[in-house]
Amino acid sequence: MVEGARLQFSPILGKTDPSFAREKDMSKPQPIEYTKAGSKVRAVFDDIKRSRRVEDVNNFWKYLARDPVLLKRTWQSLKEVMAPGALDVLTKEMLYLAVSISNGCPYCIASHTAAARKAGMTEAMFGELMGVVGMANETNRLANGFRVPIDAAFE
Amino acid sequence: MVEGARLQFSPILGKTDPSFAREKDMSKPQPIEYTKAGSKVRAVFDDIKRSRRVEDVNNFWKYLARDPVLLKRTWQSLKEVMAPGALDVLTKEMLYLAVSISNGCPYCIASHTAAARKAGMTEAMFGELMGVVGMANETNRLANGFRVPIDAAFE
Amino acid sequence: MVEGARLQFSPILGKTDPSFAREKDMSKPQPIEYTKAGSKVRAVFDDIKRSRRVEDVNNFWKYLARDPVLLKRTWQSLKEVMAPGALDVLTKEMLYLAVSISNGCPYCIASHTAAARKAGMTEAMFGELMGVVGMANETNRLANGFRVPIDAAFE
Amino acid sequence: MVEGARLQFSPILGKTDPSFAREKDMSKPQPIEYTKAGSKVRAVFDDIKRSRRVEDVNNFWKYLARDPVLLKRTWQSLKEVMAPGALDVLTKEMLYLAVSISNGCPYCIASHTAAARKAGMTEAMFGELMGVVGMANETNRLANGFRVPIDAAFE
Amino acid sequence: MVEGARLQFSPILGKTDPSFAREKDMSKPQPIEYTKAGSKVRAVFDDIKRSRRVEDVNNFWKYLARDPVLLKRTWQSLKEVMAPGALDVLTKEMLYLAVSISNGCPYCIASHTAAARKAGMTEAMFGELMGVVGMANETNRLANGFRVPIDAAFE
Amino acid sequence: MVEGARLQFSPILGKTDPSFAREKDMSKPQPIEYTKAGSKVRAVFDDIKRSRRVEDVNNFWKYLARDPVLLKRTWQSLKEVMAPGALDVLTKEMLYLAVSISNGCPYCIASHTAAARKAGMTEAMFGELMGVVGMANETNRLANGFRVPIDAAFE
Repeated sequence: MVEGARLQFSPILGKTDPSFAREKDMSKPQPIEYTKAGSKVRAVFDDIKRSRRVEDVNNFWKYLARDPVLLKRTWQSLKEVMAPGALDVLTKEMLYLAVSISNGCPYCIASHTAAARKAGMTEAMFGELMGVVGMANETNRLANGFRVPIDAAFE
Repeated sequence: MVEGARLQFSPILGKTDPSFAREKDMSKPQPIEYTKAGSKVRAVFDDIKRSRRVEDVNNFWKYLARDPVLLKRTWQSLKEVMAPGALDVLTKEMLYLAVSISNGCPYCIASHTAAARKAGMTEAMFGELMGVVGMANETNRLANGFRVPIDAAFE
Repeated sequence: MVEGARLQFSPILGKTDPSFAREKDMSKPQPIEYTKAGSKVRAVFDDIKRSRRVEDVNNFWKYLARDPVLLKRTWQSLKEVMAPGALDVLTKEMLYLAVSISNGCPYCIASHTAAARKAGMTEAMFGELMGVVGMANETNRLANGFRVPIDAAFE
Repeated sequence: MVEGARLQFSPILGKTDPSFAREKDMSKPQPIEYTKAGSKVRAVFDDIKRSRRVEDVNNFWKYLARDPVLLKRTWQSLKEVMAPGALDVLTKEMLYLAVSISNGCPYCIASHTAAARKAGMTEAMFGELMGVVGMANETNRLANGFRVPIDAAFE
Repeated sequence: MVEGARLQFSPILGKTDPSFAREKDMSKPQPIEYTKAGSKVRAVFDDIKRSRRVEDVNNFWKYLARDPVLLKRTWQSLKEVMAPGALDVLTKEMLYLAVSISNGCPYCIASHTAAARKAGMTEAMFGELMGVVGMANETNRLANGFRVPIDAAFE
Repeated sequence: MVEGARLQFSPILGKTDPSFAREKDMSKPQPIEYTKAGSKVRAVFDDIKRSRRVEDVNNFWKYLARDPVLLKRTWQSLKEVMAPGALDVLTKEMLYLAVSISNGCPYCIASHTAAARKAGMTEAMFGELMGVVGMANETNRLANGFRVPIDAAFE
């Protein structure tokens, strides 16, 4: 059993619980600003700012900073994944945006729409991207619902 | 109330139900081959074959053909969406594939991997696409879980 | 490679980027009102208003209007899909709502709850719809998690 | 810490692990047939067979039977949810099917297609249901991607 | 056909519809407070308050109260599911939170983060939970996208 | 525009396309066995085998090996994420499994059920995990569908 799991009551909070004030303060994650960050977090923030040539990092990174190991791993992975390679930055940002729209993540849609535009996505490109994302979501369900077997040619 | 809904028992089938044999035959959708298709379906199949310069249509279309109106609308929409425009065919196929992978549709992954390769996706491009899809799915949840507010710059 | 993808830095925006002010204005899509719409968009808006006997279209259409081709295709498809046929309008709106709830799309839940109520969904019907959507989401995962093979009777 | 979690190595199995044979047998859940079921499971199986007038229960129930408490709760909830009320059985089965298609659960699609047909869903109804499920999945993403604010009328 | 489905126009609301004011009031569900609740709802609210030792129930229950049968079934199921058993309360709350984050349900993330913290989840545990949820979502897509067949050892 | 995107026809494959044989071979990813792997892939495979004390790696890694950079990054991230820390290995494997079940990834369900059992998950624990995953998926939709606002206590 997990330590401290001796609590016998169902734990969802209510207003009158005696320990409520302290617990409540913990319930919503808070961002960590550069000036209050430890050295591990600052090192990542510095690398983000240098790589992106910006004065401050986005909220996403300030929240991940609650866990410096998670912050560092996520940034290093993202930096590697989004670097230009066989695919250019614009294509990668549009793929990222398409997935984020399909998953319905409001923060990610907002930040990657901005990133894709910065990388060169025009309004016409965005409109066509939306068309593809919409059709893919539609036909994904049509294939599921009709229980379509995979063509021999695709095996 | 829907007609014929006077059935008072819960309707999931079992082996011994007297009307089972007939009902079971209905339960799994079956494809419609060109030779057995009506004129509306044939007109769509002909257009697909002409547009894609192929001898036969994929399973997807043979199943949609159960509903000729759905078949025609889906094909016309898809043809419009996937035509080259502000985005080229390869980019569109990769976006389609990325969404299909993210949604976990086995048929769509198989068919759009083939389509993207046909349009020029190399193995290196596919590997990077997978990297982006993976990271987007990861960071979509990180943003949700930390309840990250959208930066003022993105509003 | 996509044109203009020569940008070597990772493109997510930050406050101090020199080109930021201009880019930022692009980042959040804006609605297009009838008075500022071109003729293609106006033709669709007019058809929506006529079909639904309303004075103005919903926000959804004003945003889609950023891409007139997408706007027109989506409206024509939706009009065809939602017309009474083998299924009546109320049943179709409840199906639409059930999927939107399951997918967690706040806009779609709001607009299709209103549409379903308009088509005759009572509060009792809505409560039962919620019960079905909840159980379907639960048992979908139970079937996945226990790796239940499909019964021979359903093949 | 959870008991027995003193294992210091990452636990994904490989062929040569000494304890492999025993562990592997545990890895895929197995169904429980009536003749091998305990009294609690039999009581639920009997109620399913009586309610649905079938000789045997579907695979779904035979797998849930691994956990008799889960089996009983799921059956009782499902029986209550799917009983005719403000919505008839056919409408409920179509809602169940629409959600299962949207979620991409192969078992659930197979079993609830059969159940909906049994309750009266014709092929024309199924085709229209697919049209609605497809469009809902498409427009859910369009609303997300364009970040459409909820109309004041829906608040 | 569903009763009252004789409406021939597409039903999405607009400002000028004559029946709009009345319909609009119905469109957004409203909570039911204890003082306005009927006896069935009060009985459930009382049990929640007693079980959780709180003065008032959370918003979730006040909205479910629109359908007293749904409210009662959901509370009874949840009470059974979340009681300590083979898994302790903290582990259960973290599983609940992980699924809610993965699904992107803002209300559920907020309430189950609070519940998990109440049950003993530290900030370090939360950071590691986020790491697991993120990686699971990433590798789920990698397995799908590469069409990885299940190892014989897992069958 | 992406290079090689000069293809003017819609690219989904058909049997008779002249370039079909070559393209088809590319369409389904194939695993890379140790004996055919390059040095970068072998280094990762060796580390997996050493860390997990197994003779061969699972299919998942053999497919990721198509992209050695993706393989290395994924393994390093996974090793870091799944190491015992504030959460023990069993809890982490159950969280991983819960997300994989919720997402409906067949490969991941199979492999992480095995991994969780190896780490000590009993059948009773698995049954309760399934109960939690099921309820979370249900109540996630109830909260969405009733548009429940977040309680002030959780902000």
